[in-house]
Amino acid sequence: LKRFAIGVDVGGTNLRVAAVEESGRLLEKVSASVRALAGREEVIEELCRAARALSNKYAAEASLAGVGVGVPGIIYAQTGMLRQSPNLPGWENFRVRDAIASRLGGKAEVSVLLDNDANLAAFGEQWLGAGRDVSSLCLLTLGTGVGGGLIFDGKIWRGFLGMAGEVGHIPVAENGVPCGCGSSGCLETEASATAIVRKAEQLLASGRSAPLAEAQRRDSALTAQLVYQVAKNGDVACREIFESFGKYLGLGLAGLVNTLNLPLYVIAGGVVGAWDLFSPAMFAELRRRSYVFAEGSTRVERSLLGGDAGLYGAARLVLQPPA
Amino acid sequence: LKRFAIGVDVGGTNLRVAAVEESGRLLEKVSASVRALAGREEVIEELCRAARALSNKYAAEASLAGVGVGVPGIIYAQTGMLRQSPNLPGWENFRVRDAIASRLGGKAEVSVLLDNDANLAAFGEQWLGAGRDVSSLCLLTLGTGVGGGLIFDGKIWRGFLGMAGEVGHIPVAENGVPCGCGSSGCLETEASATAIVRKAEQLLASGRSAPLAEAQRRDSALTAQLVYQVAKNGDVACREIFESFGKYLGLGLAGLVNTLNLPLYVIAGGVVGAWDLFSPAMFAELRRRSYVFAEGSTRVERSLLGGDAGLYGAARLVLQPPA
Repeated sequence: LKRFAIGVDVGGTNLRVAAVEESGRLLEKVSASVRALAGREEVIEELCRAARALSNKYAAEASLAGVGVGVPGIIYAQTGMLRQSPNLPGWENFRVRDAIASRLGGKAEVSVLLDNDANLAAFGEQWLGAGRDVSSLCLLTLGTGVGGGLIFDGKIWRGFLGMAGEVGHIPVAENGVPCGCGSSGCLETEASATAIVRKAEQLLASGRSAPLAEAQRRDSALTAQLVYQVAKNGDVACREIFESFGKYLGLGLAGLVNTLNLPLYVIAGGVVGAWDLFSPAMFAELRRRSYVFAEGSTRVERSLLGGDAGLYGAARLVLQPPA
Repeated sequence: LKRFAIGVDVGGTNLRVAAVEESGRLLEKVSASVRALAGREEVIEELCRAARALSNKYAAEASLAGVGVGVPGIIYAQTGMLRQSPNLPGWENFRVRDAIASRLGGKAEVSVLLDNDANLAAFGEQWLGAGRDVSSLCLLTLGTGVGGGLIFDGKIWRGFLGMAGEVGHIPVAENGVPCGCGSSGCLETEASATAIVRKAEQLLASGRSAPLAEAQRRDSALTAQLVYQVAKNGDVACREIFESFGKYLGLGLAGLVNTLNLPLYVIAGGVVGAWDLFSPAMFAELRRRSYVFAEGSTRVERSLLGGDAGLYGAARLVLQPPA
């Protein structure tokens, strides 16, 4: 009998559950409907319902290795407890793994493992995505915030407190704007969707981009996507926002490349769609600031698995548990 | 019979060789006299002479595990070839390990292993120094330049090109001065002995420190040590040099702490003697820029083994070879 696993990705507003075979083949993927700001118990209930449905469906043709769950936030890997999670209010200091395991465990014990979502995205990319051919990589997720995951020699590097991979808080701008973490000028304040919107607001306030002002009147919501469209249509001021984004991303990457000398850095998250606009500045800054990168064989690439990387990583967590 | 190893530290101007027991006990340490800028062949000849003398001396009471050699520069660990070394002109692309092994190998084969000096200092500190109680650490050597070594789970992390640990080239000053690496505002241009002297020269040129000008008239050579003495005597302008040093060191460390979440960062190298003057600013910046550090359990400490860390690390390389 082949083995399969259930991978779960718990987002701030959405929940996805997949059945994945040992080979990496996706059997099925479902998006469970979780109301924004639904309570912890509802999310866990829904998660278990979806996991049970999928595992029952495939139990005849393969044996269930377990359920891997990715959550945003800092996790005690040993106990499966969520230590800190700005995006999941009410989940702090909650034994998420035990809560899921006890709900899922009927007659048979089900192995449940929990990890940080960015760690699992990195683990997934290294299994089936951009990092298939390397054993070590760093993944950066550029979204509302900036997260990261590290894979060293095929293993997730969690750090001694489970706080490793907080690459969004690498200092990059000496006199940058305040960050939620208490610092200022973090990678997250300069190379996230939030940074793009903040800079676009400044543009609007200064009256420096008529096309952006016009687009916002039509669209009403000022999003990174809207700024991208205006930049694509040739607006110089909006293009500069992505150039600045790329520059700071390159600067942050330079520190990582010089320190870790990994073969691959994977760029993921929603903003990776703006790759064509930010990557030239990113590569230019990287070449200038990292002679390790300039050596030529270090790769910086887009995620291959996109939003599914974390689901695959979660499944892998139980299919290929650490030695 | 107990085992022992010969550890060698090849510096730009001096050569040290030690016999170290398996337990970590130092049997003997010698400083071989190598003329500054001596040629490669002379240095290797002298190194082998000292290694042979020490290994013969202790061969009766213990068995030789091999010879570990630390050199400044980038090394191909597999082949024991030096790839790049600004401080050892003429050694590039030279098979250092083979050259030593063939000279030492008489009747019996002698195991010779080569590694970067900062990697070996980190490896030594983790074995017998500040990192005895942890399995992972990052060591930063603050001297003329800034180097580094990473130990993850008890193993030296070399990176895929052997270039890992180049923490001296983490970007820290957005509009900093040019660095030899091609970038600008690197940790090395802000937190090295060279940075202290450069800033002191600027002080002298601007006439802002009468005590420093006077000290230099007496002493003639403007060194980091001299600037330290003037700062210790209360000169505010010279104290500010160490505060800036500490600030940028803290900023660089913040990126490392947030990314790697190691339990320990060891500060080594000649400038660590100025710890009392730079560490308050370093810790203040770290606390502000790293919520991982602010969590409270991450340690940043001075090297315990000082200049001998690399010798112990070199011996350990052959006593406890990687699995």
